[in-house]
Amino acid sequence: MENSHSKVHFFPVDVTVEIEKGKTILDAAYKGDLFINALCGGDGTCGKCKVILGSGMIESMPTTHISVSEAQKGFVLACSTKVMGNLEVIIPEESKLDKSQILAGEFPQFSGSLAAATSRVEHFRREPLVNKVYLELPQPTLDDSMADYERLCRGIMMKTDVSLEKLTINFDVLKCLPGILRSSDWKVTVTLGYRGSSVEIIEIQGGDTREGNYGVAVDVGTTTVVAHLLNLSRGETIDIEATYNSQIKYGDDYIQRIIYAAENTAMDIMQEVLIEDINHLVFTLVKRNHLTIHDINAVVCAGNTVMTHFLIGLDPTNIRKEPYLPAASFVPPLRAHEVGMKINNNGLLYNLPCVGAYVGGDISSGALAIRLDKAEMLSLLIDIGTNGEIVLGNKDWMVCCSASAGPSFEGSGISCGTRAAKGAIEKLTIRKNYDVSYKTIGDAPASGICGSGLLDCLANLVRSGVIDRTGNFQKGINSDRLRRTDNGYEFILVDRSETSTKRDIVITQADIQNLLRSKAAIYSAISTLLESMGMEPNNIEQLYLAGGFGNYLDVRSAITIGMLPDVSASKVQFVGNTSVLGAKMALLAKDAYEVARVIASRMTYFDLMCNNKYMEEYVSANFLPHTDIEKFPSVAEELMVS
Amino acid sequence: MENSHSKVHFFPVDVTVEIEKGKTILDAAYKGDLFINALCGGDGTCGKCKVILGSGMIESMPTTHISVSEAQKGFVLACSTKVMGNLEVIIPEESKLDKSQILAGEFPQFSGSLAAATSRVEHFRREPLVNKVYLELPQPTLDDSMADYERLCRGIMMKTDVSLEKLTINFDVLKCLPGILRSSDWKVTVTLGYRGSSVEIIEIQGGDTREGNYGVAVDVGTTTVVAHLLNLSRGETIDIEATYNSQIKYGDDYIQRIIYAAENTAMDIMQEVLIEDINHLVFTLVKRNHLTIHDINAVVCAGNTVMTHFLIGLDPTNIRKEPYLPAASFVPPLRAHEVGMKINNNGLLYNLPCVGAYVGGDISSGALAIRLDKAEMLSLLIDIGTNGEIVLGNKDWMVCCSASAGPSFEGSGISCGTRAAKGAIEKLTIRKNYDVSYKTIGDAPASGICGSGLLDCLANLVRSGVIDRTGNFQKGINSDRLRRTDNGYEFILVDRSETSTKRDIVITQADIQNLLRSKAAIYSAISTLLESMGMEPNNIEQLYLAGGFGNYLDVRSAITIGMLPDVSASKVQFVGNTSVLGAKMALLAKDAYEVARVIASRMTYFDLMCNNKYMEEYVSANFLPHTDIEKFPSVAEELMVS
Repeated sequence: MENSHSKVHFFPVDVTVEIEKGKTILDAAYKGDLFINALCGGDGTCGKCKVILGSGMIESMPTTHISVSEAQKGFVLACSTKVMGNLEVIIPEESKLDKSQILAGEFPQFSGSLAAATSRVEHFRREPLVNKVYLELPQPTLDDSMADYERLCRGIMMKTDVSLEKLTINFDVLKCLPGILRSSDWKVTVTLGYRGSSVEIIEIQGGDTREGNYGVAVDVGTTTVVAHLLNLSRGETIDIEATYNSQIKYGDDYIQRIIYAAENTAMDIMQEVLIEDINHLVFTLVKRNHLTIHDINAVVCAGNTVMTHFLIGLDPTNIRKEPYLPAASFVPPLRAHEVGMKINNNGLLYNLPCVGAYVGGDISSGALAIRLDKAEMLSLLIDIGTNGEIVLGNKDWMVCCSASAGPSFEGSGISCGTRAAKGAIEKLTIRKNYDVSYKTIGDAPASGICGSGLLDCLANLVRSGVIDRTGNFQKGINSDRLRRTDNGYEFILVDRSETSTKRDIVITQADIQNLLRSKAAIYSAISTLLESMGMEPNNIEQLYLAGGFGNYLDVRSAITIGMLPDVSASKVQFVGNTSVLGAKMALLAKDAYEVARVIASRMTYFDLMCNNKYMEEYVSANFLPHTDIEKFPSVAEELMVS
Repeated sequence: MENSHSKVHFFPVDVTVEIEKGKTILDAAYKGDLFINALCGGDGTCGKCKVILGSGMIESMPTTHISVSEAQKGFVLACSTKVMGNLEVIIPEESKLDKSQILAGEFPQFSGSLAAATSRVEHFRREPLVNKVYLELPQPTLDDSMADYERLCRGIMMKTDVSLEKLTINFDVLKCLPGILRSSDWKVTVTLGYRGSSVEIIEIQGGDTREGNYGVAVDVGTTTVVAHLLNLSRGETIDIEATYNSQIKYGDDYIQRIIYAAENTAMDIMQEVLIEDINHLVFTLVKRNHLTIHDINAVVCAGNTVMTHFLIGLDPTNIRKEPYLPAASFVPPLRAHEVGMKINNNGLLYNLPCVGAYVGGDISSGALAIRLDKAEMLSLLIDIGTNGEIVLGNKDWMVCCSASAGPSFEGSGISCGTRAAKGAIEKLTIRKNYDVSYKTIGDAPASGICGSGLLDCLANLVRSGVIDRTGNFQKGINSDRLRRTDNGYEFILVDRSETSTKRDIVITQADIQNLLRSKAAIYSAISTLLESMGMEPNNIEQLYLAGGFGNYLDVRSAITIGMLPDVSASKVQFVGNTSVLGAKMALLAKDAYEVARVIASRMTYFDLMCNNKYMEEYVSANFLPHTDIEKFPSVAEELMVS
């Protein structure tokens, strides 16, 4: 065995991984729990997973992503380089995906939504999906010889509004009932799990154990998985943990993962790695807070439709085939251990309901979080993550769609694009003299540009006249930042002397076209939804921006490039991670969970892929800000266009 | 290993069983699936398990149950004789418990109840607890892109009255849904299992498979287990099978079995052997009717409270301790395989609800079968099996109790008593000249007396003046049938020349006292129930006699001895095995299942063990027919007492 394996020593983290010969450096990194930026999922197309080979024997495939000078420095793509002997590998700053960076970068935003959760859940009666009730049952006598289970039910009915017809019991629990009742002098705490049509007694404990009732709300994203630990009896958020979705290794977007799973009959693996991520988060939260997994009685997951399918082991194959059908939009609550989730043995897993193939539980969760179902004002919710979803409506009606924005706002397909992690440029200004000033996350040396930085960049390029309204570089400008390479023109944003990667951070003509297509997709989706309801952008009274990207986004830049419609900034509100926020509300109040179901069932889903109006809009929106400048009066003024 | 084991060769069945040395002959018989009459459960007290040792080495305990002459013929008690080498053992006729005899003896009665089931279920809408519905779903299109599961639910709602809120799905079934829908051109049959507050989709099959929907109704008795196979889509009973409850080896009555289970931590074993009996019945039914266990989607069990506990693995220990509490009276439907029952993997097990510790699901089933909940007339239901239970009431109220009648009507504690099997005396008359005429089951040579024969015997002894109204033999009568033995007087009913056992069939003074106590228990229970409601025997408008013993019982004899109150014979109706009948009604109509719950919850249970009135009544009833002859005017006339 030993000589069929090799050791890969990673620097600067100083982790050594033993792996079978013939596996890739990326495989070794995943095995060592080291996340390497591999947006394409390891098929060699994104060129993001560059590592430096210190020493050792490899087998590598030719790639255009490594320049000659890089090759000389030892750069290889981790995903297409096979380990053939013991290696020393350096993971450069820009290729790293460090879990602590997600947290560092997103923690303030979570805190924001934490406060929001507390206030927002007040809309609902505080009755967690899994609730603990303390009972002091009357001792049985010859005159009151009701059976143990019926005595328990009677006690529950006297303390709650659960009817006898709705009560059911987990069978293993029933078996233990007589012993627990007698050993605890008929004073017990029952854990009641809401299952929609029924309420299940999932645990009975002697004495008063109401304090020990915890739940976890999970935002199951395509890229990141974020978990919040809640004390359900107090209604408090206790801790937060996040990780990258380990499915990344099988594809950056979920369509790639569906294909991978289908081609490799790897549906089980998709489920396993995702559940493993969640188990890991739960275990970390539990350990850090001196709890046990037994204390976790419920998990509420909000994920897009594909993530929800993978999570519970449903085949999502038909989602990508016309007419784009999920196996299920709403999955009734189920026992968490049925899908391998490690919480209390009888604990329940709730998935927030999906609306359609491309609008999932994260969006019904988001609509719940902003209480769209109660909104008097016409509201627009835009959630931009790995995908972009849009909901328009108020308390009377809701329409929604998914915009094929692509992952360019997460840095994919953009030469110096990166996720919103430490060192990423999140704000950027180009002055009249073409000088660039910028701010990075954590004020670290720049490693690349994340979504909000890219929006600023595009807006500033057009404002400063570096590009025209079609997005083309104005070759006549007087700046040596604009240069021509073998692949066309590019504009230097940060000189290599200032970067952590020791390479220039640039934006290329191809990058600009990618960003244009992405912003056009979002704008035209908004515009199609509005038109379908006979409305215009100025009818929008509230615009909610959700998603990891939301909080850092400069609204003015987003309007200048024509991604958002030309609304007053006062109407815009950043709402953070509404997916996890809605999940928390559901966890704390079963009525909120039911409202999410109502929201999902009331939303009308528009499929844009076959929508002619959308295609027309999309073409018009591939312009800065739009072919019809009259739709953007404030931008016309800003850019002095008439 | 081999020399620690011995072979026991049983005759006349010609079965050889290999068994560990030191085990008893009874153990060997059970291992060989040979039932030996061992009413006491094998502790040597009943003396029923006599076998004849042909050859071989044994170790035996002294017993008073074997006379000297029997010992000389090789008789030993199977339960207290250890196998110490290879043996040849003859099982005499009277010690056999032959399964075919239960069926032969009880089949006509079942047929009667079969007809009844068909007519009685008509009271209810015919909707089985587990129902199959055929759906032709519309093909999805871009305009109708509802998810698979929601599409299925919509189809179900259009064909049934199940609401969306109530529908749940078994998780393994959901996983297969997309594949089945597409491979069967969206034409599927769903199996819907009623679970009280919810309706579960337990199976989805391509095409129209409505025909293949079967269920089994089981009367789980302390002594026998009877199973009826039903075609649920047609509402027809197809076949019947019965067996002895294998728990018999651990005790003849359920109190003995509770003690055995507690002392030997054998709760699991109690469940296993009972489930194994049911599995065996189901398998036999399925095989004989060319089905598979997969076709069996539901089992409804009606058993007394202790059997119900053992069946589902609940500890019945507290049932025999004051204040006599079951762990549960009603157990919600559960997946049959959870208790080891081998039917369709997602098939459901329903247990009819118990009323209290000593009035079980067999009695609520019985009350359902006679539609006591709809009765205009004051009705009395008496179910005499291993125990005797009594229900009094009408559509407005119901009271019930259990009479500690003891098993004497099943032949236990009676010197020549036997179960109602082939050769048992079921009818008997004593003429003026003390000659005895009798009829045996199957007209075979007499082997003993079963319950109905014992009632006739007691009635005829008092009518003919062989005993007086206290039950004592009148030594002065002119008949050599009355003789004195070491154990007191006995009356010879059948001369050894006519019996299959080659021994006289007699009734002893001790037998008479046992029977008196049993009949007194039943009468005083009836009388206590009546009194508690301020009523008298002549208020009874309908008297239903249920149980194995019912159909053969001579009502006049039962009144003469004062077991039944003095009512007109026209008010008495034999209703056979109402336990299985009610279970069948529930299986075929979920409304009937719900009515059984209502009945159980409406019945007021009287515990007689601590009831002073009952004790007084009992003392008065230890007389033929009663100390107060005015309560039995027709008997006063018959016996010419004034």
